[in-house]
Amino acid sequence: MMSSESVLPLPENPIIVGFGGVGVDFLAVVPSFPKPDSKIRTTEFTVQGGGNNGNTMTCAARLGLKPRIISKVSNDGPGKTMLEELEAEGVDTSFFVVSKEGTSPFSYIIVDNQSKTRTCIFTPGYPEMVPQDLSRANLLSALDGARVVYFDARMPDNALVIAQEAFHQNISILIDAERPREGLNDLLSLADYVVCSEKFPQAWTEASSIPRALVSIILRLPRLKFAIVTLGKDGCIMLEKCVDDEGSHIEEMDVDSCFVSLTTRKEDSTAMPTCIPSPVTKLRAEGIEESVCGRLYYGTSEKIPPSELVDTTGAGDAFVGAVLYCSCQL
Amino acid sequence: MMSSESVLPLPENPIIVGFGGVGVDFLAVVPSFPKPDSKIRTTEFTVQGGGNNGNTMTCAARLGLKPRIISKVSNDGPGKTMLEELEAEGVDTSFFVVSKEGTSPFSYIIVDNQSKTRTCIFTPGYPEMVPQDLSRANLLSALDGARVVYFDARMPDNALVIAQEAFHQNISILIDAERPREGLNDLLSLADYVVCSEKFPQAWTEASSIPRALVSIILRLPRLKFAIVTLGKDGCIMLEKCVDDEGSHIEEMDVDSCFVSLTTRKEDSTAMPTCIPSPVTKLRAEGIEESVCGRLYYGTSEKIPPSELVDTTGAGDAFVGAVLYCSCQL
Repeated sequence: MMSSESVLPLPENPIIVGFGGVGVDFLAVVPSFPKPDSKIRTTEFTVQGGGNNGNTMTCAARLGLKPRIISKVSNDGPGKTMLEELEAEGVDTSFFVVSKEGTSPFSYIIVDNQSKTRTCIFTPGYPEMVPQDLSRANLLSALDGARVVYFDARMPDNALVIAQEAFHQNISILIDAERPREGLNDLLSLADYVVCSEKFPQAWTEASSIPRALVSIILRLPRLKFAIVTLGKDGCIMLEKCVDDEGSHIEEMDVDSCFVSLTTRKEDSTAMPTCIPSPVTKLRAEGIEESVCGRLYYGTSEKIPPSELVDTTGAGDAFVGAVLYCSCQL
Repeated sequence: MMSSESVLPLPENPIIVGFGGVGVDFLAVVPSFPKPDSKIRTTEFTVQGGGNNGNTMTCAARLGLKPRIISKVSNDGPGKTMLEELEAEGVDTSFFVVSKEGTSPFSYIIVDNQSKTRTCIFTPGYPEMVPQDLSRANLLSALDGARVVYFDARMPDNALVIAQEAFHQNISILIDAERPREGLNDLLSLADYVVCSEKFPQAWTEASSIPRALVSIILRLPRLKFAIVTLGKDGCIMLEKCVDDEGSHIEEMDVDSCFVSLTTRKEDSTAMPTCIPSPVTKLRAEGIEESVCGRLYYGTSEKIPPSELVDTTGAGDAFVGAVLYCSCQL
């Protein structure tokens, strides 16, 4: 998303807080994808921590941040595995709610190496997290000294309580918006940064292109400093809002044309990720009256030869982890 | 398999020992069977004890026997669930080997109520049971006072050690022969009783019909007192060996014709299971020189209306549990 020169070592290890889903992945390698009513045997089986929040905070810890997770698991095998793995990665799990009864959230993932498919069957944790699970004292301790709070938009009742407190304390809020969910709009209205899946911007705004949807998102969420859309192997697009201190002297540009002009500057010869920024512009989108003063970025992804590509699971979460790292520099 | 009049209450609670596979079933109810690479969510999730040995011993306990299980699990959630469930059913689990590390055997079962399919993905336990896991003192305690030892033919190295000791102590041996497996022949050579799946007799003997295969089995395993083949909703066939104390006065009969004549005596009007025995006969099978002096039984199954039929999982194991009950009367 950003050129490597811009990712400078941080002066200290900033504290961030992640709230949302964690889970355990049961990776069941099978000789071939099962037919209904068949009985098959796994050839390999491993248990691994997962979940958006778990993955993102693990990435953030590996980059040198000090992440704390607020979430809920049960005191069962998968729950214990999760906490141990996160602690080993340097993630502070002391704000976890651990239920004596129930089951921890987990995904059974059927890994078929023949057809290269990964089929995920998710079972939510039980009992669900409720606002009473997190005392105000614990919430305040969790947020103490934090620079950014991350939300994957799960468990919206709890998320809103935490986001409101973070807002009150002037702690930045970053939302990972995968798809429209219950309670997401309330969270977004408090957000400083948002990272969206490829489909989210148009699903949420009904705009006819991703660049137009980004303009609409920035206009609808006046607190937002930037919105990023991830495009898988095609990289990402980011719209950063700028302060319009030059008044009407800034050039106006159609956001779709602006994006196309960025893509033409892509260098196909380089395998490394690059970041192509537009100048600060008044970005207009067809069908939207207001313009946004900002800078559009086109980020290309690293070209990875198929032979080196092991698995893209959690790649989006790792991307958000890196965005969190960068947001601690802002 | 036998008419209900023949199943008399036993004078005491006979001890039986079961050796073989136990496991936990993860029943994951899904809205529809997953497509490869899709992400779905379970609508219901329950954990239940299972495995041939676990199911069979549970049935035996419910019928009033005192079963002890020898098997291995890990000290994880599924392992603990299994031991608790078995204990609650009255199965003695004190001879279980509980590994501190590793994973207990489990099946992830995708239950699709729409298409009425149950797809089982089995993951074997780790570390595997090895003969050193069971001390001679524990083996002797487990067999102390036992009437019958059951084997599902799993973990053959351990099974053979236990079967040899049972044989030495004149304890009857019953084998559940689902399919040809490594080490099964050594166990069968020590067996007093065998219950086979529908496909096993012909797979093992290469005979051209099930009745002929039963004659072949009785001839190949001279210790065997009876062999039963289960046929699902079509009931079962049993060949019981009899002592030929009348010499050549016993009538000879072709085993296939004998079986056909039994099936013609089936009464379609009754919903209850019935048992149709032949007289003691010298049973001949085409292509086999020797005859078997014995009695052939045709057992019909109960006719259960589809609306009352919940689930046939473990029905075969429950059948073996009932055979164990009856064998304690012999």
